[in-house]
Order: sequence, then structure tokens, then C-alpha cells
Amino acid sequence: MKIGVLGTGMVGESIGTKLVQLGHDVVMGSRTATNEKAVAWAKATGKGHVGTFANAAIHGDLLFNCTGGMVSLEALHLAGSSNLNGKILVDVANPLDFSKGMPPSLSVCNTDSLGEQIQRAFPGTKVVKALNTLSCELMVNPAKLPGDHDLFICGNDAGAKAEVMKLLKEGFGWKTIHDLGDITAARGTEMILPLWLKLMGALGGPNFNFHIVR
Amino acid sequence: MKIGVLGTGMVGESIGTKLVQLGHDVVMGSRTATNEKAVAWAKATGKGHVGTFANAAIHGDLLFNCTGGMVSLEALHLAGSSNLNGKILVDVANPLDFSKGMPPSLSVCNTDSLGEQIQRAFPGTKVVKALNTLSCELMVNPAKLPGDHDLFICGNDAGAKAEVMKLLKEGFGWKTIHDLGDITAARGTEMILPLWLKLMGALGGPNFNFHIVR
Repeated sequence: MKIGVLGTGMVGESIGTKLVQLGHDVVMGSRTATNEKAVAWAKATGKGHVGTFANAAIHGDLLFNCTGGMVSLEALHLAGSSNLNGKILVDVANPLDFSKGMPPSLSVCNTDSLGEQIQRAFPGTKVVKALNTLSCELMVNPAKLPGDHDLFICGNDAGAKAEVMKLLKEGFGWKTIHDLGDITAARGTEMILPLWLKLMGALGGPNFNFHIVR
Repeated sequence: MKIGVLGTGMVGESIGTKLVQLGHDVVMGSRTATNEKAVAWAKATGKGHVGTFANAAIHGDLLFNCTGGMVSLEALHLAGSSNLNGKILVDVANPLDFSKGMPPSLSVCNTDSLGEQIQRAFPGTKVVKALNTLSCELMVNPAKLPGDHDLFICGNDAGAKAEVMKLLKEGFGWKTIHDLGDITAARGTEMILPLWLKLMGALGGPNFNFHIVR
């Protein structure tokens, strides 16, 4: 499958590498076509490609937003509304604002979310919020933790959610993915971050995840 | 132990009943000393007592805030700052604002929390945030769900947290309680509510809880 990964940070690198390993044709996009981290990533994978945000968006039938949440809207506008149109965009970002120090606050929450902002800004794109509630290492390797633990997904387009869930289950190895409904549920999954950050401190690292016991 | 339960809703009723069953001497407090729900609760338990918020606060060496989050500060002011002074107050409330319909929003979040507001308003009280992340039925009966599932606790006073954890473990039956640090962590546990509400919708009811897998 042709996939565009927007963002060259740890999240983009982890997801891009996993997708290449699964045999997908991946372009990692950033502000410039010669981003050092993207070039190093492509070289390390052997099969990954690099380009601008627009190159990645044009290339992918499926897109991952792995940019920092504070710059996601800007990055997606650079990718280009027409290039995003009709595509599925998995939004992995969290609107964490570190500008006032630690712990970060959320730049949007409660009555809105980054997922909703992206969906409103790009109404022709099928935004699916997923993978934003755990470390990038666990995103692509859930088996690293013992037993059952869960993902959350939401979005307005049922077909897009089904396609993303298929990739996350059959490709990434996830067993339990809770469909929380439309994109407004992104408020809930983004607002879990303050608890996640406190747990990271209490547990001494990011190697944990939520499991819903019923 | 002498315990005051502030609030006559489902949460106050569940916690008050459990505490009476454990042999504690409980006064359920509300705006009036003759609140119908409190009187019915006292009769049902056989051993519970009723009174005003102030009566409950004076009575208890340990207090539970089970009032609605939108009226908690008002209720605690009615209880009286001097009556709360030096006491441990377990804050179970969430600042859920239903005034604009469903789903509710939070009246405070992100850079502040209800737990912190209460601690600031009553600096002589040892506020411990706990039990606000699950249904009242599960609060007092964790064994209703199979296997491990977890509570979160936070507060500025280590001794107060230890005393509350002892009651929750030995009395209520909780096995895993994550100490998230000072009262600012209440932002995280209160902000889990939007996700909790979406999960309640997706799972068809409130009979679930979070387990942290490591």
C-alpha cells in the first residue's frame, strides 16, 4: 500500500519503519525534501523514501499525521488541502504545549480537540484519531507488554476506521481496539495525556498502556 | 472510625453504605439535617446517621466529598472551613457541567482541577483525590470485575494518602492504587472523564475500569 508519513520525529520514525517492514511503500514527509532525519531514516530502512509534506500526501492512499500537535495544522496546510482530499489521515498527534515548561498543558481540550480541528480544516479528508495514547515503541509493538492492553479509535467515517483497524490489527498486532464513535471522541483520548504523563513519572518510564477491564 | 460523607447522591450512598458495613460510625451530610435521601439511607443501613454538611464535617476524622463537582466548593463552604481544618478529605467529585447538554464538559481542567481548587480554598485540609475514575458500584466493590484493575490517588500530604490507601485496600478491597504525586495530578484523573463517558457509550454501561499494564 502507498502510505505517507508526515513528521520525522520518534513517532514518524517508528511508524514509518514498521510500515516499511510490513512491505508498504512509504514516503516520509517534512518541510523540506532533504530533512536530515528523514534521509537517515530512509537509509536505515533501505526501502523508505523522503519528500516534502506535499510529496508524502500525494504519494499516500493512507496518511499518518506524526507531526507535533502544536504544528500539525500548519504542516497539513503545507501538505495541501487538495492533496489530502479523499484520503484517510490517521491523526497520532497530541496538542501538547511545552512552551510554559513541564508538565505541558493542552492547547485545545474539553469542548474541542486537535482531531476535530483537523477534520474541520480538511472536510474532504477522513480523519481517524488513533495511537495517540501510548509510546511510539508500543504503538508498533504491542507484544512488548504482557497480556491484553488496548487502543482507542474514533472518526466520522466508518469505512476509514475499519481500514485503519485492519492495519493496526493485522499489521501492528493489536487485539483490542475500542471504537469510541465520531471524531469528537478525540477530546477524550487527547485529554488522557495529563494522566499518562503523571503515570510515566510514577512508573518510571513510558513502557505501559491502558487496558479496559469489563 | 468516625467518618463524614458529604452528599446524598449515588456516590455518597454507595460509599456511606460500604463504610457502615465495615463498622465505621458514619454521618451523611447535606444542606438540611432532614434530607429525604439521607434519612432513607440511614434507615436502610440501620446504623448510619444524618445531619448538615457541618454536622458531618464536625463528626468525621475522615471526610468524603461526594457532592456534585459543580457544587462541591459551595457545599464545603457550608460545611465550614474551621470544621474541615486538619481533616483528611477524600475528593471523589468530578467537575462535570451538564448545563449545555450531553456530553458534559469539565468546568475546570488542563491548567487547574477541582481537587486543586478545593485544596486552595481549604489550605488546612488534607485533600486526597481518589475514586473519581469509575462507577460508584465498582468504587466499593472492585471484585465485581474480574482480574486486576486500578485506582489512582494524589494529594499533597503523604500521611493522608497512606491512610486513605489503607482504607481503600483493606476495607474496600483494592489491590493496585497508583500514587500520582501531589494534588495537581487531579487534572489527569478528572480529565479522564470524557474518555470514560465515551467508553460507557461504546461498552453499553459503566461496569468497566482501567488497568495499567506494564
